[in-house]
Amino acid sequence: MKKLLLPLVLMTAASGASDDSKSATNDFYTTDFLDQVATLRDHALTDPLAYDITESLTTEVGARLAGSPGDAKAVAWGEAKFKSLGFDRVTLEAAPLKRWVRGVETAEIISPFKQTLTITALGKSSPTPNEGITGEVVHFNTIDELKSADPALVKGKITFISNRMERHKDGSGYGKAVGARSTTAQVTAAKGGIGAIIRSIGTDNNRTPHTGAMKYEADVAAVPAGAISNPDADLLVNMLNRGKPVTLKYTLGSRFDGDYVSHNVIGDIIGSEKPDEYIVIGCHLDSWDLGTGAIDDASGCGITMAAAKLIKDHIGQPKRTIRVVLWANEENGLSGAKAYHEAHKEEMKQHIFGGESDFGAGTIYAFGTRMDEKAMPLVHEMMQLLQPLGIEYAGNEASSGADLIPMRAAGMAVFGLKQDGTKYFDYHHTANDTLDKIDPKELAQNVAAWVVVTALSANTSENFGFDLSDK
Amino acid sequence: MKKLLLPLVLMTAASGASDDSKSATNDFYTTDFLDQVATLRDHALTDPLAYDITESLTTEVGARLAGSPGDAKAVAWGEAKFKSLGFDRVTLEAAPLKRWVRGVETAEIISPFKQTLTITALGKSSPTPNEGITGEVVHFNTIDELKSADPALVKGKITFISNRMERHKDGSGYGKAVGARSTTAQVTAAKGGIGAIIRSIGTDNNRTPHTGAMKYEADVAAVPAGAISNPDADLLVNMLNRGKPVTLKYTLGSRFDGDYVSHNVIGDIIGSEKPDEYIVIGCHLDSWDLGTGAIDDASGCGITMAAAKLIKDHIGQPKRTIRVVLWANEENGLSGAKAYHEAHKEEMKQHIFGGESDFGAGTIYAFGTRMDEKAMPLVHEMMQLLQPLGIEYAGNEASSGADLIPMRAAGMAVFGLKQDGTKYFDYHHTANDTLDKIDPKELAQNVAAWVVVTALSANTSENFGFDLSDK
Repeated sequence: MKKLLLPLVLMTAASGASDDSKSATNDFYTTDFLDQVATLRDHALTDPLAYDITESLTTEVGARLAGSPGDAKAVAWGEAKFKSLGFDRVTLEAAPLKRWVRGVETAEIISPFKQTLTITALGKSSPTPNEGITGEVVHFNTIDELKSADPALVKGKITFISNRMERHKDGSGYGKAVGARSTTAQVTAAKGGIGAIIRSIGTDNNRTPHTGAMKYEADVAAVPAGAISNPDADLLVNMLNRGKPVTLKYTLGSRFDGDYVSHNVIGDIIGSEKPDEYIVIGCHLDSWDLGTGAIDDASGCGITMAAAKLIKDHIGQPKRTIRVVLWANEENGLSGAKAYHEAHKEEMKQHIFGGESDFGAGTIYAFGTRMDEKAMPLVHEMMQLLQPLGIEYAGNEASSGADLIPMRAAGMAVFGLKQDGTKYFDYHHTANDTLDKIDPKELAQNVAAWVVVTALSANTSENFGFDLSDK
Repeated sequence: MKKLLLPLVLMTAASGASDDSKSATNDFYTTDFLDQVATLRDHALTDPLAYDITESLTTEVGARLAGSPGDAKAVAWGEAKFKSLGFDRVTLEAAPLKRWVRGVETAEIISPFKQTLTITALGKSSPTPNEGITGEVVHFNTIDELKSADPALVKGKITFISNRMERHKDGSGYGKAVGARSTTAQVTAAKGGIGAIIRSIGTDNNRTPHTGAMKYEADVAAVPAGAISNPDADLLVNMLNRGKPVTLKYTLGSRFDGDYVSHNVIGDIIGSEKPDEYIVIGCHLDSWDLGTGAIDDASGCGITMAAAKLIKDHIGQPKRTIRVVLWANEENGLSGAKAYHEAHKEEMKQHIFGGESDFGAGTIYAFGTRMDEKAMPLVHEMMQLLQPLGIEYAGNEASSGADLIPMRAAGMAVFGLKQDGTKYFDYHHTANDTLDKIDPKELAQNVAAWVVVTALSANTSENFGFDLSDK
């Protein structure tokens, strides 16, 4: 095995690789095979399949909150779609979950100036009483300010956290801002507050508030929590800036509503040489309920289903099984990820390499891995074919999508194809997550990249993690 | 009077005018006065007053649909604001209107794929029955297609017009698209349809549908009519494109609800030489109810109130009265415009020159007039001071804002300061019409331009229309 160091030299076109690189690639793949992959990659740039799948899921199913009627429709859609695409084996695997339902959502400033606000419940929020909650607003710039606040300031009041998420290509503003969403209800309740409102975790200026999950702890009964849109948060701040008490009233009908069994929907392209070794790709099938779940995450389903289908049709059966998983309930509990790991934990070492497409449909600009360093020569092979797509190597500390967390924790090697997320958080978890936000050309570039990584990892006997680390 | 031909030579700074232009300007204004105006124009570019007024109206009143509680609050706000700004005379003039109220608004596709749509009632729409209207959708690309359709195609169905408004700097896409909104209910009813849905008249891709007024004719009972957002219209089109019948259900609670008397709020800076001659500027005080009416039309109030106030404070009392009118119910019937003309029709010839700021807060790029050609030398004076703001002369066929239509029809000379409307129809008549859509610097450039036109027309004895045409 030839050792190669990154960063790699940019190749202008993989199919036009020099004699030097051809000799290098022959350690793992035939030149014919690499040419086939390069040809398919280029074909994928104009292939409509991913867009058609995305259009199908958003048009024929739409919103598909875990446990809702849309969830069941999405599972049926996924099963039928895999079959119609000619996947070799289609399996449904149960993913039990606690169903959470949204209800009425209203908010208004009562004084000093009566105005209606747009609000949405945060995932897992408990309901307000039917008549709503009315109270004085106590304003914090950040969740950390709330955490360090004297409980006497919070007791009996509605907390409001107003910091704004920053816009970055890599979405890094999200991690810095999302703590306000995930913990405000618990922190507020622990200090005696009666309600919790946050500025939406989003980069837009639309009256479309951003929902999203909260963390709950068992020892404190959390308060009903909602997000108001960015323009509404601006309005509330402007009123608070006048220095007089601001009274807010809001009503949320959201609540847990019993148990439900959703399903991971699994489509396999069965390996010709190692059918029990899996390259795991996919998306999550559920969505929040406010939009039609186009960028979160129908596009990920379109990208990965299309990549696997194109490989089967244009290159033929892979050596290893390509497993496309449409994960259940990623958004509000990772139910599918947990169920899959539990059901397959004895076969974890057969799960060779995995990635999830769950960051919209923006152009991919980087490829990262999290694997044994000994697999770097394989990464080199992939990069030869990815660089013509404008993709750089991003190092060996990649994340891989939330649904792979349990398998990654068990040691599976993962990869990430990093998408341009500049606009992603304008629409994420809002009513605005609809098909029009997807550029078909950018989506197709995603498919081309997934074809490369999936085809190359499924057509080698080399390993990326478990086996290498055992050596 | 020196005759000058347009177009004018671009001046780099009015205060640095050449000796030639100084001698030219002396026909109408002293050099000192023109220097004062140039200085105030430049000061206005950083003056915060217009933004403060706009922030005040949107924060302290917000939505102010004619006849709603917000209408009364806005009238009280306008009266108090004029007084606090030191206007010489503040007058309320009654503007009777038919109150129209919005109610419940829901829509969903029942089949072939059940999905929720965002909808808003069009202004003046009648209500559906409480249980809503359910029917098959018949699709037309344009209102003209509907107009020429066989009634047998429409009878018993819900019409849907899907053409999309084009984006242009001058907003010219609006006139081409808005016929769908204003007449679909009548045309549908006349052909025996049961309901009318249009794609929102807007250039955005947000789930924030655009409301707006319809025309009603007496001889046909119009059907309830609503607009769905652009993404929802895309979804409906995608379903229709599958070639199977699409069944839609929608509920609108909007209805007329008795008589109401709103008010035009008038603030005068009284002329020192000709107090009974009026330069009429202003905005409309009402807004649609979905947003806080920031770009439509709080910004117009901020611009024109600030321009008059700055002239009084920095230049002093004008020769003619500067009349700032905050017009009542522009959106749903021009009630204030009609009432003002009726009340003042004997004094129309004292209304010398008028303009309304009602196209948001984008940068002004052109100045147009509609007046006697003999007044062109005055326009030349104005252009000397407007050109440094990046404003070109747009000719003598200007429109001037809807509220001046009755006075313009009676012969009053009008002007228009044309704003960059590239983004205006992303937010127009939607929940997204909020303060964040306004750039304070662009708003201030507007004030600078209004200062020039208002100060120069109020500080001359020359005429623009009636008197000149009588000569």
